[in-house]
Amino acid sequence: MVGGGEGAYIGNIHRIAARLDNAWDLVAGAFDVDPEKGRAFALSEGIADDRAYADYKALITGELARKDRVDAVAICTPNFTHYPIAKALIEAGFDVICEKPLTATLEDAVALEKLTRESERFVGITYTYSGYPMVHEARVRIANGDIGKVRTVQVEYPLEWMATAIESKGNAQAAWRTDPQKNGRGGSIGDIGTHAYHLAGFVTGLELEALTADLATFVDGRALDDNAHVMLRYKGGARGLLWSSQVALGHSNGVRLRVFGEKGAIGWFQEQPNELNFAPLGEPVKVIKRGSDNLSADAIARTRTPPGHPEGYLEAFANLYSGFAEAIRARRSGRDPGVIGQNLPSVYDGLKGLAFVEAVVDSHEAEGQPWLAPLRV
Amino acid sequence: MVGGGEGAYIGNIHRIAARLDNAWDLVAGAFDVDPEKGRAFALSEGIADDRAYADYKALITGELARKDRVDAVAICTPNFTHYPIAKALIEAGFDVICEKPLTATLEDAVALEKLTRESERFVGITYTYSGYPMVHEARVRIANGDIGKVRTVQVEYPLEWMATAIESKGNAQAAWRTDPQKNGRGGSIGDIGTHAYHLAGFVTGLELEALTADLATFVDGRALDDNAHVMLRYKGGARGLLWSSQVALGHSNGVRLRVFGEKGAIGWFQEQPNELNFAPLGEPVKVIKRGSDNLSADAIARTRTPPGHPEGYLEAFANLYSGFAEAIRARRSGRDPGVIGQNLPSVYDGLKGLAFVEAVVDSHEAEGQPWLAPLRV
Amino acid sequence: MVGGGEGAYIGNIHRIAARLDNAWDLVAGAFDVDPEKGRAFALSEGIADDRAYADYKALITGELARKDRVDAVAICTPNFTHYPIAKALIEAGFDVICEKPLTATLEDAVALEKLTRESERFVGITYTYSGYPMVHEARVRIANGDIGKVRTVQVEYPLEWMATAIESKGNAQAAWRTDPQKNGRGGSIGDIGTHAYHLAGFVTGLELEALTADLATFVDGRALDDNAHVMLRYKGGARGLLWSSQVALGHSNGVRLRVFGEKGAIGWFQEQPNELNFAPLGEPVKVIKRGSDNLSADAIARTRTPPGHPEGYLEAFANLYSGFAEAIRARRSGRDPGVIGQNLPSVYDGLKGLAFVEAVVDSHEAEGQPWLAPLRV
Amino acid sequence: MVGGGEGAYIGNIHRIAARLDNAWDLVAGAFDVDPEKGRAFALSEGIADDRAYADYKALITGELARKDRVDAVAICTPNFTHYPIAKALIEAGFDVICEKPLTATLEDAVALEKLTRESERFVGITYTYSGYPMVHEARVRIANGDIGKVRTVQVEYPLEWMATAIESKGNAQAAWRTDPQKNGRGGSIGDIGTHAYHLAGFVTGLELEALTADLATFVDGRALDDNAHVMLRYKGGARGLLWSSQVALGHSNGVRLRVFGEKGAIGWFQEQPNELNFAPLGEPVKVIKRGSDNLSADAIARTRTPPGHPEGYLEAFANLYSGFAEAIRARRSGRDPGVIGQNLPSVYDGLKGLAFVEAVVDSHEAEGQPWLAPLRV
Repeated sequence: MVGGGEGAYIGNIHRIAARLDNAWDLVAGAFDVDPEKGRAFALSEGIADDRAYADYKALITGELARKDRVDAVAICTPNFTHYPIAKALIEAGFDVICEKPLTATLEDAVALEKLTRESERFVGITYTYSGYPMVHEARVRIANGDIGKVRTVQVEYPLEWMATAIESKGNAQAAWRTDPQKNGRGGSIGDIGTHAYHLAGFVTGLELEALTADLATFVDGRALDDNAHVMLRYKGGARGLLWSSQVALGHSNGVRLRVFGEKGAIGWFQEQPNELNFAPLGEPVKVIKRGSDNLSADAIARTRTPPGHPEGYLEAFANLYSGFAEAIRARRSGRDPGVIGQNLPSVYDGLKGLAFVEAVVDSHEAEGQPWLAPLRV
Repeated sequence: MVGGGEGAYIGNIHRIAARLDNAWDLVAGAFDVDPEKGRAFALSEGIADDRAYADYKALITGELARKDRVDAVAICTPNFTHYPIAKALIEAGFDVICEKPLTATLEDAVALEKLTRESERFVGITYTYSGYPMVHEARVRIANGDIGKVRTVQVEYPLEWMATAIESKGNAQAAWRTDPQKNGRGGSIGDIGTHAYHLAGFVTGLELEALTADLATFVDGRALDDNAHVMLRYKGGARGLLWSSQVALGHSNGVRLRVFGEKGAIGWFQEQPNELNFAPLGEPVKVIKRGSDNLSADAIARTRTPPGHPEGYLEAFANLYSGFAEAIRARRSGRDPGVIGQNLPSVYDGLKGLAFVEAVVDSHEAEGQPWLAPLRV
Repeated sequence: MVGGGEGAYIGNIHRIAARLDNAWDLVAGAFDVDPEKGRAFALSEGIADDRAYADYKALITGELARKDRVDAVAICTPNFTHYPIAKALIEAGFDVICEKPLTATLEDAVALEKLTRESERFVGITYTYSGYPMVHEARVRIANGDIGKVRTVQVEYPLEWMATAIESKGNAQAAWRTDPQKNGRGGSIGDIGTHAYHLAGFVTGLELEALTADLATFVDGRALDDNAHVMLRYKGGARGLLWSSQVALGHSNGVRLRVFGEKGAIGWFQEQPNELNFAPLGEPVKVIKRGSDNLSADAIARTRTPPGHPEGYLEAFANLYSGFAEAIRARRSGRDPGVIGQNLPSVYDGLKGLAFVEAVVDSHEAEGQPWLAPLRV
Repeated sequence: MVGGGEGAYIGNIHRIAARLDNAWDLVAGAFDVDPEKGRAFALSEGIADDRAYADYKALITGELARKDRVDAVAICTPNFTHYPIAKALIEAGFDVICEKPLTATLEDAVALEKLTRESERFVGITYTYSGYPMVHEARVRIANGDIGKVRTVQVEYPLEWMATAIESKGNAQAAWRTDPQKNGRGGSIGDIGTHAYHLAGFVTGLELEALTADLATFVDGRALDDNAHVMLRYKGGARGLLWSSQVALGHSNGVRLRVFGEKGAIGWFQEQPNELNFAPLGEPVKVIKRGSDNLSADAIARTRTPPGHPEGYLEAFANLYSGFAEAIRARRSGRDPGVIGQNLPSVYDGLKGLAFVEAVVDSHEAEGQPWLAPLRV
């Protein structure tokens, strides 16, 4: 692991996720920009002295020199460092798991996606919501035609913790999220809107054709948007509405997706992730529970406990990590991956996220908020 | 009452609403385009033979000739007849209660609003959702500054019953709603989107500055939109998203309003109308119940039963009717109306609804979906 | 109407219910123990001078003398006066609608039930919850075998407004409810537990075999129970748990019924009365909405608005009043009543309620809380 | 670990829980009654060859011989073997983590509790629900007097998966649960009712004084109860109702606890474990979210993710494992444990669970279902 040391929220989440299913051992790391702090943290995590590296370059050199080198490297550093680190790792022949966003700029993302494709390395990106079993269930049902052709998609990601200027009161998490240098051009749209965008595309299989966006910054002194309204047109005629907000009092991480088709509708809410609302045309709404009978192999493979014993965010994250492990193993063995190693968020999804944010901000900033198509690659 | 005879859904609702609080007696009517059917229906409702009129013109003549003439006339006829009937009634000196929309065209609405203003007649319009006590509670709290300055408004009105082409299978309700001659230029946006638009403005007190819209018609052969996405900018900087849909499987009349301010947020859902979610900054979400202590006089005046004994749509409708009665009585007595006679949906609100639909359709039909301001009057 | 005058909560509810569907006209009454106040109230309700009676005896005499005498008399007086008034009315040949409980003592209830049976008068009792359309839907589905043989019934009626000694602080509603002279032997069990008991029996069709009860009085100085726990055994082997509480903070009128059978389960919650949860064996839970397709004739007959436009407590009450009207008319015409005039709460149900409370209090007061069978008649 | 090998549901849960917070390494085990299968499983879990033991006796001998012996042993074997294994481990000086129930008989539980007390070994028992952070929050608030003196407790554990005779159709989980030899005298009451009983006592701090019970067996051919109704009287005057059911269609693991006090009420539902409903006297219900501000140190110590990113059953289980680790470490260091190492379910809680089931079955089986006090130790 690179980054994610002492006090880093997301680093800890990655480690729990890697550990939960016993799919990974954490055996090496360069956890901090301060080499001493990084080493100390590594040792506290039980990493051997000679694999507690000063920085990612030392890690690359060190691991390349070992026969038992690491299977993959997780990148949990600030957004703007993702690209150089990932590039170096890929060029050195390592597989990579990268925290979202893929990079800080679209340009870097394009380059990284190209490099990945040409190098044939595995690069996964942690769009967490696509780790939830009932999100896969929704995806499978839609792919199977259970709701018919999709008509409209309503997706939102409201949260409240940045409703005041906490970035100026010492909240480090808020500080980098409101800094264009560190977060990129998008504020709420980059931080959480991309999750919503990925989730909608992941579940429906739809490709975006064009969008128009209206961004707002409600907290005084903030440099990036903290509320984004986006209208979407997907290829094939489906429409969508996307709302992301960092100032939505009363909401914690209220990711909600509703997909309406010709023959049915499906709804999922991240704060009650073990359920799916399924509304077939002409029938009552059914509440489908994770772990219940008659679910897809995709949902079952991502389930540990029976219905009624809730799984949550960490289990979804662990599903990604277990999926990455399976995908990497299968690739090395020259076999097809098992179910959990399929339908993983990829470097291409990461690139699409950057292209989405770019189009959103471009539309907003242009006169009249024109409909724009995100970059095609 | 004009219109709303045998088999008319909305006419029956108006009569229940008028009766519920004993605020009105139904003593005269012209209920049907077929005079004989209209008279038969009138008699079945207990109306005296000499006040069972053949049409609205006969009603005007007949009632003008009586000392005990009706206090007001409710118009429940098809949309495109609202204007001539209302005009005739106002010119004859009657007060009017008009089913929404005010008229079928913006032009008629402008004329009717002007006529009303100049005649000093009372004209109320049944935007039902503004009759709910907890909607008033939300309005009062926002007006009192309980959530601070409003930042964003999320409002939606999804329903499912027109998800297939039932208008071509004998459903009369769907038939006129999909007929541009009868419903006006807007489909879902005119039928239900205007309710959402009025509700958002009513609760927040905000005035719309501009909008951009993306309409869609998903059911083959339908002439009007059945799904509308609209981005809103209010005066003063607040933003909004509005979604109306007649093809949203799983939703019946899912009117939902969420308002987010600097100091709090308020949410209301029509299918559970006895509750208000109130999220003050830095505190847990509170579930405020209709009938509970410490509510506004506005909510109390619109409440009949204690908390936990639900009131619903008919009671909201009755609140409008009782409010119209109070407003008319107060006006005649030269006094200020009591609480229930205040904050009623007016002819001006009806006009604003038409102007909203016009701007939505204009934006959608123009190249690039420009931001447009609705007509100011 | 007898009783229910100025300031009486339940009298107003009865009048709204009678009016809502236009099934009744209020044409005569003796509304108050104070004849002058009663007369004044009658006039304010639009009742003719000569039918604004001083008391129920005058009402009987007066109405008997008229050809256009009232079709029925509603009794909304304090519990302990129900018996003498109902007796006098029945003996004079009037049909009666009686607020619950039927009488204040079991002895009176036995006598009244016998009198009713022998007189062939119609006596309805307002067990409100059996007026809800989705309660009828549940009843029909269970009767049709949709959940198979019933195994266990969970029913509760928690409310909070008597959680402190408000009866000693001027709350008249609480005062009579805590007075054994006025409320009978049961406190919460008599006031609200009987509603729960009736609802469970009404929906399941089960007859109680025996019960054991544990009552408690949590508010100091209160003479009657304010919390009741009861275990039930029904004939045929089904079991039940019943909880009523007047001190359940956070609950308003939280009537909840859940019935579990061999092939399915049904749940209904009075605060969201437009929905039924239906859980068939081996299938997901379905949310059945009032007004939706494929409901029973019994539910449809008690429905005025489409799904998503909520109906509530007053509509349920009105369903009883409309049902009473239909039952009385049908009886007079010698025909079978329509659907709404069937399955109405009867004098026998009122008697069963009293017998239930008697058995509950007897069990509680006896040493060791023996299982007791309620009185059979 | 002893037991919990290939295919064992609960063994896997224990391992995930141990691993999740990195509080434990799994380094030795005797996982199966078949030594070869147990060894194979151990190796598959990455356990060293010389610590993959044939049975618990070999494990004891083997580990005693090592300096780096295990810190504790988790027992995941069938219920009736808990006692001999725990006894041997304790006598050999090991700390123990035991799956619930503590033993199969009350006699064994009494002996084991005594042995534990006298040996001063640590014995934890996995009453999972007491690992949830919001359960601790409820406990702390009640202990702090936030709801005043407790009046009544409503607790239930309904589930559906044993609603038919699956034990006779090859379901091993159902087979041992319905076998008196393996599950003890209680069916649903032993399997899940004890969880409900423990949860209620844990949160309220109340001690049971007496109970009366009505058990039922609804599935033909089943030897133990599959539905239990219990009325509770706690010391100090509080009352309770407890319902456990294995035949409650529509419910998965619907553990629900509601506690009503003089000044407030608290509700928690395991299927939405990240929220607590808190109803203070005279105020609206508040929805308290895990991870939000102003929670107790006890809740915070058991929280990994921010509000809105749900944690669930495995995290609760992990909180127990991390707590056991902290308690054992603290004990060895002679210091007080940190917050997470306090308020853990102990051998005494395990004993109380057995005493509860004994009293329930005794009450049910005696004539007239007398009120009985559970065994005091």
